[in-house]
Amino acid sequence: MALNTRPLNDVVALAGGVGGAKLAYGLMRALPDSAHLTIIGNTGDDFRYYGLAVSPDLDTVMYTLAGVAHSVNGWGLHDDTRQMVDMLRCYGEESWFGLGDRDIATNLLRTHMLAAGKPLSEVTAWLAEKLGVAVGLLPMTDDPLATRVDTLEYGVLEFQEYFVRHRWQPTVTRLWYDGAEAAQPAPGVVEALRQADLIVICPSNPVLSVEPILQVRAIREAIMARCVPCVAVSPVIGATAFKGPTVKIMGELGLDASAAGIAAYYGALIDGFVVDDQDQRAGLAVRHLATDIRMDTPEARERLAGEVLAWAEAWKVRAE
Amino acid sequence: MALNTRPLNDVVALAGGVGGAKLAYGLMRALPDSAHLTIIGNTGDDFRYYGLAVSPDLDTVMYTLAGVAHSVNGWGLHDDTRQMVDMLRCYGEESWFGLGDRDIATNLLRTHMLAAGKPLSEVTAWLAEKLGVAVGLLPMTDDPLATRVDTLEYGVLEFQEYFVRHRWQPTVTRLWYDGAEAAQPAPGVVEALRQADLIVICPSNPVLSVEPILQVRAIREAIMARCVPCVAVSPVIGATAFKGPTVKIMGELGLDASAAGIAAYYGALIDGFVVDDQDQRAGLAVRHLATDIRMDTPEARERLAGEVLAWAEAWKVRAE
Repeated sequence: MALNTRPLNDVVALAGGVGGAKLAYGLMRALPDSAHLTIIGNTGDDFRYYGLAVSPDLDTVMYTLAGVAHSVNGWGLHDDTRQMVDMLRCYGEESWFGLGDRDIATNLLRTHMLAAGKPLSEVTAWLAEKLGVAVGLLPMTDDPLATRVDTLEYGVLEFQEYFVRHRWQPTVTRLWYDGAEAAQPAPGVVEALRQADLIVICPSNPVLSVEPILQVRAIREAIMARCVPCVAVSPVIGATAFKGPTVKIMGELGLDASAAGIAAYYGALIDGFVVDDQDQRAGLAVRHLATDIRMDTPEARERLAGEVLAWAEAWKVRAE
Repeated sequence: MALNTRPLNDVVALAGGVGGAKLAYGLMRALPDSAHLTIIGNTGDDFRYYGLAVSPDLDTVMYTLAGVAHSVNGWGLHDDTRQMVDMLRCYGEESWFGLGDRDIATNLLRTHMLAAGKPLSEVTAWLAEKLGVAVGLLPMTDDPLATRVDTLEYGVLEFQEYFVRHRWQPTVTRLWYDGAEAAQPAPGVVEALRQADLIVICPSNPVLSVEPILQVRAIREAIMARCVPCVAVSPVIGATAFKGPTVKIMGELGLDASAAGIAAYYGALIDGFVVDDQDQRAGLAVRHLATDIRMDTPEARERLAGEVLAWAEAWKVRAE
């Protein structure tokens, strides 16, 4: 691969939910001009909740970048309440999706704008701008592309049923992405990838959060055709995921969920892999950086993002 | 008019918002078997709020009958909050319609069921049943019929813009009902009127709350063709309405908003008029009952309803 020698100016990051949002936040803070940062968000977990168009991963990134995310959960809005869901229960309805009352505003506006014919990318840009997010936030696609799982216990489930209703406890026997064949990248996505000086794959679940983005053929092709570095940050430390079912689901699908296994999963898509200090002897076949990859505080997010940027920068200089 | 001699068994009441809901509640409590009570609710003030199908008057009646209405406002749910509307404001949106968070559940379910093709009457019956309402609650129509006003200050306004956004302060120069020509009564409405032993017009705004119901031609015709008494309860005491713009708007439209004027407005639709003690010498041309028509407490609602029922009952006996 021929790496060009442009200064590290434009950065594109692929992000899923909470983990991806944290690194996206760190990149926003670490870059000299966050207007040159573009986040490509996962929409594979989007669904309709009583008709409301919910985009959990996109909103997690948006709220995190806007500084209004729930500080403990990582998703949803801080200081939110569940009055609406509580009332749904009075109607005898299921309330397993804990949509916050303030969060409803986002989903109601999105639903209303989509119904008026606006594409998701335009709606997302509008919402993000209103919340003061200066970073570009693009859904991977404006088309339907839905992550689906077949499970031992319940058969085929929609993603949020698997993930939230059943708390990712069912055993996944098969995983696929409805609509992937036809999905086109949202406007600006391929352009951002082509213009990027660095592509970052955030520490999100490889099969549930990153793979749906890569399933948009033109996105995968643009990354494969890159002439700039693409680095991924590991979503695991040792045999443990930070959050969610990364290790469990990859195991069920016969994939190796170790740092080395995840690097191998990304294969030729990445030029470098950032792992935790604990995994520095993990037998990685790809160029790697070992550091503290936990992002428990805003400062830790910015520090990790800064290290990723410095690493890629130095590496490019060496490549000249 | 030939009044029949059936015992006062089935009662139908036409109700608008808060005032109508209070008498409907009183009737429910005063009747030996509230399953024989049917409320025909006004849908002329229904509108879409960011795509949500809101039915303010229907819900006011439903919540009041279910015992979950806001005790001070009369509309909306008790113990509700405004988190969603507050967040809408963060997006720079208008928040003049103070939709409560718990109230959103009702509107979300209604919107979702309407989108699935269910008629409003079916949706309303489902919602009311889930909240434990034993009384029949029917929207006047499943068709669109929207109260509209032309105003001196703002030109043509949708009803909720006039009523909530501008707090009924604009001067109304013209009032009409969009869709009235084509609107058919909801299933069960005409049947209930035909089967009724008594029809009650609740103390609601004659032109804004009751007239939209009467604008459904088959409803007006069924009332005109009755062979049982129809009595109205006055929404005014002296020159003052209990709530809202009754006196103001009737004056602006050149109508007499006194008890006598309102009785005259209903004309041949009513056989009797219930007024406050203060209005007993108001020069009413129709048979009337003077009593305390304030309904500040649940007990007062039941007492007034009981008096209305007893009056109509005794009157029928005399008519035999």
